[in-house]
This record gives sequence, C-alpha cells and structure tokens, in this order.
Amino acid sequence: MKPTAKSSFESAPLLAFGAHPDDIEFGCGGIIARETLAGRLAHFVVCSRGESATHGTPAERTAEARESAALLGATVEFVELDGDAHLEVRAAHSLKLAAVIRRLRPGVVLAPSLVENQHPDHPRLGQLVRDAARLARYGGVAKLRAKPAHAIGPLFFYAVTPEAEPAGVLPVLIDISAPGVVAVWTAAMEAHVSQMRTRNYVELQLTRARAQGLRAGVEHAQPLYPHDPLIFDSLAPLTRAARRF
Amino acid sequence: MKPTAKSSFESAPLLAFGAHPDDIEFGCGGIIARETLAGRLAHFVVCSRGESATHGTPAERTAEARESAALLGATVEFVELDGDAHLEVRAAHSLKLAAVIRRLRPGVVLAPSLVENQHPDHPRLGQLVRDAARLARYGGVAKLRAKPAHAIGPLFFYAVTPEAEPAGVLPVLIDISAPGVVAVWTAAMEAHVSQMRTRNYVELQLTRARAQGLRAGVEHAQPLYPHDPLIFDSLAPLTRAARRF
Amino acid sequence: MKPTAKSSFESAPLLAFGAHPDDIEFGCGGIIARETLAGRLAHFVVCSRGESATHGTPAERTAEARESAALLGATVEFVELDGDAHLEVRAAHSLKLAAVIRRLRPGVVLAPSLVENQHPDHPRLGQLVRDAARLARYGGVAKLRAKPAHAIGPLFFYAVTPEAEPAGVLPVLIDISAPGVVAVWTAAMEAHVSQMRTRNYVELQLTRARAQGLRAGVEHAQPLYPHDPLIFDSLAPLTRAARRF
Amino acid sequence: MKPTAKSSFESAPLLAFGAHPDDIEFGCGGIIARETLAGRLAHFVVCSRGESATHGTPAERTAEARESAALLGATVEFVELDGDAHLEVRAAHSLKLAAVIRRLRPGVVLAPSLVENQHPDHPRLGQLVRDAARLARYGGVAKLRAKPAHAIGPLFFYAVTPEAEPAGVLPVLIDISAPGVVAVWTAAMEAHVSQMRTRNYVELQLTRARAQGLRAGVEHAQPLYPHDPLIFDSLAPLTRAARRF
Amino acid sequence: MKPTAKSSFESAPLLAFGAHPDDIEFGCGGIIARETLAGRLAHFVVCSRGESATHGTPAERTAEARESAALLGATVEFVELDGDAHLEVRAAHSLKLAAVIRRLRPGVVLAPSLVENQHPDHPRLGQLVRDAARLARYGGVAKLRAKPAHAIGPLFFYAVTPEAEPAGVLPVLIDISAPGVVAVWTAAMEAHVSQMRTRNYVELQLTRARAQGLRAGVEHAQPLYPHDPLIFDSLAPLTRAARRF
Amino acid sequence: MKPTAKSSFESAPLLAFGAHPDDIEFGCGGIIARETLAGRLAHFVVCSRGESATHGTPAERTAEARESAALLGATVEFVELDGDAHLEVRAAHSLKLAAVIRRLRPGVVLAPSLVENQHPDHPRLGQLVRDAARLARYGGVAKLRAKPAHAIGPLFFYAVTPEAEPAGVLPVLIDISAPGVVAVWTAAMEAHVSQMRTRNYVELQLTRARAQGLRAGVEHAQPLYPHDPLIFDSLAPLTRAARRF
Repeated sequence: MKPTAKSSFESAPLLAFGAHPDDIEFGCGGIIARETLAGRLAHFVVCSRGESATHGTPAERTAEARESAALLGATVEFVELDGDAHLEVRAAHSLKLAAVIRRLRPGVVLAPSLVENQHPDHPRLGQLVRDAARLARYGGVAKLRAKPAHAIGPLFFYAVTPEAEPAGVLPVLIDISAPGVVAVWTAAMEAHVSQMRTRNYVELQLTRARAQGLRAGVEHAQPLYPHDPLIFDSLAPLTRAARRF
Repeated sequence: MKPTAKSSFESAPLLAFGAHPDDIEFGCGGIIARETLAGRLAHFVVCSRGESATHGTPAERTAEARESAALLGATVEFVELDGDAHLEVRAAHSLKLAAVIRRLRPGVVLAPSLVENQHPDHPRLGQLVRDAARLARYGGVAKLRAKPAHAIGPLFFYAVTPEAEPAGVLPVLIDISAPGVVAVWTAAMEAHVSQMRTRNYVELQLTRARAQGLRAGVEHAQPLYPHDPLIFDSLAPLTRAARRF
Repeated sequence: MKPTAKSSFESAPLLAFGAHPDDIEFGCGGIIARETLAGRLAHFVVCSRGESATHGTPAERTAEARESAALLGATVEFVELDGDAHLEVRAAHSLKLAAVIRRLRPGVVLAPSLVENQHPDHPRLGQLVRDAARLARYGGVAKLRAKPAHAIGPLFFYAVTPEAEPAGVLPVLIDISAPGVVAVWTAAMEAHVSQMRTRNYVELQLTRARAQGLRAGVEHAQPLYPHDPLIFDSLAPLTRAARRF
Repeated sequence: MKPTAKSSFESAPLLAFGAHPDDIEFGCGGIIARETLAGRLAHFVVCSRGESATHGTPAERTAEARESAALLGATVEFVELDGDAHLEVRAAHSLKLAAVIRRLRPGVVLAPSLVENQHPDHPRLGQLVRDAARLARYGGVAKLRAKPAHAIGPLFFYAVTPEAEPAGVLPVLIDISAPGVVAVWTAAMEAHVSQMRTRNYVELQLTRARAQGLRAGVEHAQPLYPHDPLIFDSLAPLTRAARRF
Repeated sequence: MKPTAKSSFESAPLLAFGAHPDDIEFGCGGIIARETLAGRLAHFVVCSRGESATHGTPAERTAEARESAALLGATVEFVELDGDAHLEVRAAHSLKLAAVIRRLRPGVVLAPSLVENQHPDHPRLGQLVRDAARLARYGGVAKLRAKPAHAIGPLFFYAVTPEAEPAGVLPVLIDISAPGVVAVWTAAMEAHVSQMRTRNYVELQLTRARAQGLRAGVEHAQPLYPHDPLIFDSLAPLTRAARRF
Repeated sequence: MKPTAKSSFESAPLLAFGAHPDDIEFGCGGIIARETLAGRLAHFVVCSRGESATHGTPAERTAEARESAALLGATVEFVELDGDAHLEVRAAHSLKLAAVIRRLRPGVVLAPSLVENQHPDHPRLGQLVRDAARLARYGGVAKLRAKPAHAIGPLFFYAVTPEAEPAGVLPVLIDISAPGVVAVWTAAMEAHVSQMRTRNYVELQLTRARAQGLRAGVEHAQPLYPHDPLIFDSLAPLTRAARRF
C-alpha cells in the first residue's frame, strides 16, 4: 500500500474524533477553523452525547455540537460507543471507528491525546482511534469488508486541557493568527451554551493558545502531537520554529 | 525581532556544524545532498582536523573534508576550538560560533545531537551550537558587535551513530530517495579515504538510512531531531507520516 | 518459592509467544535459531491464525507457522484468544496463558514488547504474557489448580518493528553471528510465503540485525528488553558491551 | 579494533574510580569483595583526599583508603584532579584518566553514576571516566602516545546513595550473598573511621543491599547500571531475574 | 465546584483502597498509623479476599484484614470487583468505586500506584480509583445519582513494593518516626498471619521505610506519589526536604 | 547535622538567585510578593547586570533591579560571575555562591531550572546554585571557612519561560491570588522599564500564571519544581491538589 499521494490527500477531509460534544472545539477548534477557512473539508465524529456531565441534556448537547460544527464549517456525526463516562478500550469499538475511517477516507486524523487527564474517556478514545487507524489498513478484517482498506495520513493528538499534553513530546504548532480564525473558534466554543455557566473553559483555551502564540512569536497558536515521525521531501517547509524567548 | 520572513529564509544558506572532518557527512550527508541538488546553498563549519583519530593526518583529513564538501555541493571552513578530543563547553567557543552565525546569517542550522555517544566532542559541539544560536540574537554582546544580530531558522540535531539518537524524541524524516541523492552522499562519505580502512562507517549509515526508509515507505530517509516546536501556517505541509509497518 | 536452580533451568524450554503466525520469527527468530542450534528446546505459542491480514488464509498461515517453526527447530501450538486484530486485555486470557506456562514450565520467556506499534495485538499480548507469568506463580488461583505453580526465569520483550523498541531502555544484545544462524533465521522468515509479496519485512529485520551487529562489533545481533533486573553471581559473564562506535 | 577476547579479559583487572576516599567502598564495595574473593584483581583510582569533608584530615583519609582497599583485596592509587569539592569537567582530566586506563588495561570499569546526588564531584567523575574510556581507544591522541590504545570491557555506573540511581534504568544485580562477602565489605566501609562518627553511611548501604537482595530473592545484592547494551553469545548466562515480589 | 474548604477537609476521612487484604498495610500502613494516632479518621476499601494467594483462605484473610485495620484505628469494608488475580479495568468498577467515594466524601485518597509490579491487580486498581475520583465529580452520571457529587482532596499513590515506585517521580515523604507509629504499623502487618510464613514482606517494608528515613534524616519515612500538583497558600508548610546525603 | 528546626526556618530569609536583573521577577515574582506581603524576609542575588541584552545599559538594569526588588519588599545584591551570556559551570562560582549561602543562612532557596531555555545562563546558574547548596554544608572546604556550615531548607527551581519547565516533573503550585499579590508582582515586572519595549514578557508571565490558576481553581498560581522529595510530618498540610479540569 503506497502512502496516499499528495494530490488525493489534499482533497481528503480532515477527520476529528471527540469523546464528548465539545472536546474537539476546546482541544483543537482553532486549527479546525484555520483549515476550513482555507477551504478544507472537515468532519467530526463525536462518541457520546455528554450525558454524564453536570450541565446540559443529551438533546441540548447534540444541538450545541451541530451548531458549533456549523460555525466551524465542519460536518458532524455521532457514533455511540459505551456512553459518556463509560468508555472502555474494546476491539469492537476500534472496529466501529475503523469502519468510519474506511467510509470517509481521511487524510489527517485528529484524536484526543493518550495522556490521562480530567476525563477517563479522553485517553481511551485516543487509544481507540489509534487502533482504528491501524485496523482500517488491514485487508482481511471480516467486519470491515464492506469498504476497501484505507491508510490515513498523519495521526495527531490534541490536548483538551494542559494535563493532556504529553510531557517531553515536542508538538508542532499551528499558527491560528490569520484574520477571523480565533473569532470563529471562540464562537464555536461559546455555542456549547450549557457548558458556559462557567466561562473558564473558553478562557482556559484562549489563554493556552495565547501562551503558545507568545512562544511562537504570533498572536495565537495551537499544538498538535504527532503520533509518528513526519516525513518531508526536503527542508523547504521547515522554516519556522518556536524560539521566541 | 520578527521571525525571518519566508522569502529571505529560502535564500539563506543551510549551515551545518561538525566536530570532526567527517561528522556532517556521516550524520546528515544525505539530507545535505538532497538540499544542494535542489539548488540550496550549504555551508559546513568543521571544528577540528580529526587529529586524535586512529587514522589520517590533519592535512589528509582537511583535504578529504574539502573534497567531500565539494562532492556535496557545499562550502566548508574550519574553526579551531580546543582540538579533536579536547573540546570543552566554554562561553568563548559559543561566542566564536555565534560570530560565524552572524556572518553567514543561516536559515536552518544542523548540529550534532546532545546525546552522549562514541565521541565526547559530539554532544559538546551540539551544546555550543545551541548556545551560539541564542547568543547570535542578543543585541548587547560586546564581542559580537562587528555584525548585526541574527535569529536563525529551525535548529535540528543529527545523530552520527544510533547511540546519539535522542531516546523518545520523535524525529522528522527527510526523504532522500530522489535520484542521485544517495549516490552523491555515498561518494562524499567515501571521500574520507583515511577512515575507509574499515568500510563499516559507510555501511552503518546506509543501513540506518535504509531502516528509516523502510519505516517511511521510501527507499532511504534520514532523521533530524528538532530543538524547538516547528511552526506551520496550516496542516497543508503535513501530509506524510511514518506508518508503514 | 526459590528461583529456579540453574541446572533445571538449562533443561527448561525457551518459550516464545506471538500474536500472529510470523511475529516470533520476525521479532526474535535469530535468537531462537541461535539457541536451538546450540541444543536448547524452544516452543512457540501463537495466539491467532493471522486471519485479519491482507494476505494469506488462516490455513495457509497455520501451515507456514508450522513450517517456519520446524526450520527453527522449535515446536509450535496455537492458543485462540480473541482472534487477529481483536485482542483485548482480559483476565481470562492471562489465565489461559498462565495455564500454558504451568504446563510447559519454561525458563526464559519471550513476548512482544509493550510499546504500541504497527499492530494493536502486539503490546496487548505482551501485557497478557507479563500478567500470565505472575499468575502462574500464585498458589491459590482456582482455574490453574490442574498444574503446580511455576516461577519462570527471565521475561524478555522482543520488538517486531523498530517502533516497538522501548525508548530509553537498554537492551541486551544477543550475538547471532555464529555460522548458520542467520541463514536458518532467514529461511524461517521466508517460510511465511503469503507475507513475502513484499520482501520488505525480511529486509527490515536483516537490516535491523545488521545495524545492531555494527554497534556490537559482530556480524548480526538482536536485542531483547529485560522486564526485570537481571541477576548475576559475579561480573564474570559480563565481558562484552556495545561500544564499537 | 576487536573487542577484548574473553580469555584476556578474565585476567584483566577490575578498575574502579572514586571521587573521594570512600566512594568505591560505599557505592560498590560488596561487588568488589565478591570479585576479589573469587580471585579477580581489582584496582582503585581515587581522585581526591576528601579534604573538603566535615571529618578527617587528608592524611587520615588516605590511610583509611589504603586500609580499606587492603581489606577488599584491592590495590589503590591516588590521581589528583581539582581537589575535593572542586572537580570540573575538563578535557585535561579525561586525558589523565585515559592514561591510567592505558596503563592498567582493565576489563570491567566502574565509575560513579552521572545522576546528580549528594556531592557534585560524583557525577562529574562519572562523566570524566566515561570520556576517558573513549579517549583511551583513539589512536591519534598526542598526549596518550606513551602507551598503546586500549578498549575497555563494559563500563558500569555505581550509585553512592539512592539519589544517584538512574531513574527508569534497569540495573543488573550482583548477588553478594556468598559467604564472607558482606562481612569483608562491612569491614572495608568501617575502615573509614573518620566517617564513622555517624554510622548512618554503613547502615544506609547495608539497608540498600538488603532491599535489593529481597527483590532478588537472595540475602544481599548490589546494582550496577550498564553504560552500553551488554552483549551475550547466547541466552545461557541469563537465567535469573529479580521477580521475587 | 469549589475546592473543599480546609475546615471540612480536616474532618473528612482518609480513604485508602487496596486490591488485596494486606496491600494498604504493606504499602502505606505507617502513614495510616501516623494519621489515626493523630486523631484522623481512616477507612479502608479492600477489593478482594486474597483468594488467589498461595497462603490463607478468604475467611482467614478477611479476619486478618479486620484485625489489622482495627490495630491501625481504621474501619474497613470489602467491595467485590472481579476477584483476586482477575481484576480488569472496567467502567462498571470505576462507577462502583465512585459510589463509595460519594458515600464517604473523603479528603485525601490513597490508591496503589499505576506502575506494573508483582501483582497485575495493583496498577489496575490504581487506574480504577483514579477514574472513580473523576466520575464522583460529574453531576450527570445516572448510576451515581443516589448521592451528591463529591470532589476529593489530593489523590496519592502508594507502592506496595519497590517495583511499583514510579521512576523519576519525586514523592512526598511522610515522617513516621513519631513514637509508637512504627510499632503499630508492624503489628498491623503481622496481623496478616497467613502471609507471615515468610517474614520477608514485613522486613521489606521496614527496610524500605528505614532507607527513606535515612534519606530524610529521620528514623522512618514512607513515600507517597501525588497524582496532581499540590497547591499551597504559601511556602510556609514547605520547610523540609530530603537532602541528608 | 540536623534539619533546620521549624522555628528558626520561619525566621530564615527566602533566598532567590537570578542570572539577570529581571529573571527572579519574571520567573517567580508572584511567589516572592506572596511571601513578603505575609511578612517573610526575601533576598535576591543577581549574577550579572544584563549587559548582553538587546536593551538597557548595565547601570539602567541595576537601577531597575533595585527598584523592582524594593517593590517586592526584597533586598538585592549583585554577585559577579562571568558576566551576562558568558556564564560557565565552574567550581569557583559554586564556592562563591556557597559563601553567600553561609552568610545569609536561608531556609528556602529559589534558582532557575536546569532545563535549557531561551538563555544559556539560566540552567547554568541553576547548576551552580544546586552545587553551592551542597558545598555550603561541607565542613572542610578551605575557601568557605570564614563562616560556619549551613544546610538550607528546600531548594526549588523556577522557570523563566515555559521552555524551562521540567517535562514530566510535578510542580507544587503556590496560590498567588491573595489581594494585592498580582498587582505588586506586575509592578515589579514593569519596573524593568528597559525590557518593556515589548510588553510580551509581562503578558507571558501573567498568561502563564492565569493558566496555572485555572488548573488550580484559583485566580493565579505559580509553579515551583522541588529538587528533592519534600518531607511532611503528616498529611495535614496536603489538602489541595490541581484537579480542576
């Protein structure tokens, strides 16, 4: 199986997975906005309705996720696994997500990081997506035969909160300072109205993005943690590094 | 101080530092060949004449380094520090290398990794270059006033042998499979005739590059270890990752 | 429970676990060949028929595994867990493998490393074997009462691909340069005919073993990663270390 | 340069370096006793007279070191570097120690670990010995030409206190439970009379060795931390691992 | 949800979880004794009857656990999960333990460390407790609605054996040298009569506590590994650190 | 030597070391303000005049440091080592700083972290202070005999920028939300007028402290990284942990 050719990759959608209706927005929403504003397709797979959270009914959370995705220019679907706060690492779940990958044939895939943090579902979904991206490539998996095998492009992890940032792992920083990006992202976070009874989540994310921006010498930036070594044809795309301070 | 603009960066030379006359070639020569074959300027700074090695006189080693650099399409200069096998981490050395950086105003800088390996000079030069890249930016350093301050582009480490690869650090892999690249690189390594009494060094490097290539799904690849998070304007350049096996 | 006495250990078989029919051969086949050529008993436990792979039917894979084990001078059995690409970390599996350990009473045990790599089954089997080796020692486990408790000798992990090598963990290197060892190993890998449509796997493993050999100053070597500190009666057996470069 | 042949290695002395007159005894004295009681030659190189310590004059410390080495069946010499509590990492020191290595032509070399601990001299001497072992191999070092190049056997680090144990590095454990070993070791530690005003050092070391022994299922054991992967001809010497609890 | 106020915290019980009837005593019993002798409430949750161990019937183990807890001044309850040596990481278990947390409303929570060690149940219970402490806070979890949400104070891990100590993680050391503490702790360990056929467990724990005490400059100390950064109002409580050697 | 008694510790000054005139303020100024507002003595030792920076003369920098320290309620002195951007790790420097420690007899000591970051002087000063705190304890150091030996209380590292935060090391968080603390700290940072041509430094630090505060559930917090395990008499002071998200 050859790596996906660049041309087909560029038309391939960006696929982001989230354990709860707001995880993608809080963890990497600025990057999503950056990409869709540049004309790229993005699709969200949300794996619960947030039904165990302190605030918001499943119906409200679902509506908020749809509204937020629309603001970000992304499509969204819900894939039920074990339910909010009940997620387990099971082969059946990886296969279910692998079937999604085969159906959508993404280039870049985004998933929550594997580092334990404020919600047990986050790293478990990270593991499931990592495994799903493997399984989607194997030609002989009986349960996946409805669709042809697919090798994704790079898999990146995002960190919903600072605790989820992998210690000692160098991220790539995506500059999200282009006009309009942070505004769209902020609106998308605030679309999760039920979670806004405390504004802290939005402030936390903007504070984090500003701190990364200060490192990078730009207004705002968000980190992604590559799962595998990135491959480049030459040094030409590698022109900037965070050496501001 | 703003990050170097992309246009000026692209015309800025690639600057590689080596502790001994053959370190750059053995550690990242394939990448150098890839870049110069694509038309980029490359310059080598070699910090000893290899005078403590088992084979080769300083004059032979110097001539070999010049021949090898020429084969790679690079220019080369020698900067004396403490001498082969005598290198220490001293501020005076960092300042000397910072003056070189100010004179050459490079984009990407390559240096030996900080990981202890078969020669004590390697990680020490890595430290000196890392510090020099800092010092070159500071406006008030008295000894550097002859030239204006300069902020380099990304600093990458290369690993002369596997022991020097930083454990647990994800490299970027540079695909060096383009026609002619490995042939030029091999010739450049073999130009170090005095070190060829054992062919193992060349075989080691080609074996390593092939193993990385197998991971990446290409013929040959060489790893570089970024010192700082890399910054990208979008996900567009991030289309390939080593997920072959 | 006393550590197994040296005399009984030496007659105890070497026991290797693999998640798929070719994992043992690709990950540590050179070491197996080294041991069996020296007269040691070796037994393989293979935990799927490779039925999810792109190439090869379960019947073909089973036949290839038998052929390959025979070439290596090892016996082989199949223990069904959840099936290829469906493996989960379950207590029932650990107990099943612990029963195998009690039946065979091995000295050294080899298992795939715990590091995530190209197949989710690999690290999971590593965890199951690690746990099974614990459970086999506990006197009161109801499901294991059919056989007396057994304390294994050292547990080592092998890495099917470079990604599975534990970062920052010092391996022991087993010199497999003795005459005939690599030839037997290569034949055993090639016996997995269905996986040979790409020769890359065999090349990858020989390339890795050569790179380790170059570090060690021998023709070929393979690494094993000890799970626990190794104990020696004196420094006498510790005469060689990889300091070639 | 071929690795030292096994036969010559076995007659090669064990060489241990210490920063202060009692470091070797406190850090790995049980292992020394184990080896000399088995007939192996051992030599100590002590790099200060302990003149900055709270207790003991240089003359007393020197006499104690001689007495202690004699009890352990080892010879001892003093090599002055910068003096107690003044040690720096300098190339001149590494060259001085490399000359010692060329003169003595040891197999196994023991040095204090590189991990910062209760005395800044400890990890610095570890670095100097590590570098000296490299330099002793290089054929062209002008200052070392009086003696032929020498490649040591394995380099191991010892930890004078628990803080100096490298985190996350698997040691090898040397069983020092053979009759008389701990008694000889204890006597050697107690020969440092000036340091006995508090008995805590001796108790600390015996407590540590007992804790390692309990892990290993023997009376007492001491850990060593290999600098490089150890190489074995087969699995035969690898029969025991610390899996007691 | 505000952090628990200091006054209410001080009256909140200390809650310790153990996988087997003696884990809490062996892993952190000295700390328990220290706290209860100072008048604090402590409660143990034991998650099996030790029915897979080599020695002791479930009835004996239960009686020993009750006797031991009484000696330590703690109350104890048994919560059945999968049974000794059968523990799995399941959402249902985390929810069961979260219900316990909501019922008891503890301040400090103690759990076995996440590091693999001599029993697979230990790190798994650590994961379950970590997750349970999260789930107890989420307002919408249907299965937990019988009791109001509760945010615990700090979560600390204890290490039943040295293997379970997280490498490279700085513990806090609790000084257990106050009169009577070690005596009570020793009696509590010895109350596990069925496990005393070998005295090694008790000796191992006292040896470990003495080694930590020697580091800390006190008679005995036990380490705890914080799960999250500890927060202090000022530097006033931070007056002592282990810098003895 | 007994650990400093609590009563004497509380009257002992807080001693902070900085490589440049503004490092202490930017790295841990909020904590200083918190302590001095509570009545504790604080003293700064600044080891250069910032003469290599892009902005500000040595005289300006010195005046700014005095003004800033006064705002923080701290005293300040300058100790010349090698000069700004020229710092080396030398025994003579450690001895000089050890003499300062003996003169001031501090409890808590604060130093820049050992992690390489935007200025090579920062981690080097961290090493020198760490060593100085050792040397200050040794009774026999000839150059220190003018003052009696002194054992400091805990040594903590601060991080001037995010790059200097030790990866994977759990900090303690000091809550600096008490009224007036952040205002005083901000004024102290702004007193470094020559460095204010870009406001980014102040914004970076406030952004960092807000992000830590969000983790901790308070307005602002600053992290410190303990060099050694902290010792507590009981669990009583350990009532809060950062578990907000």
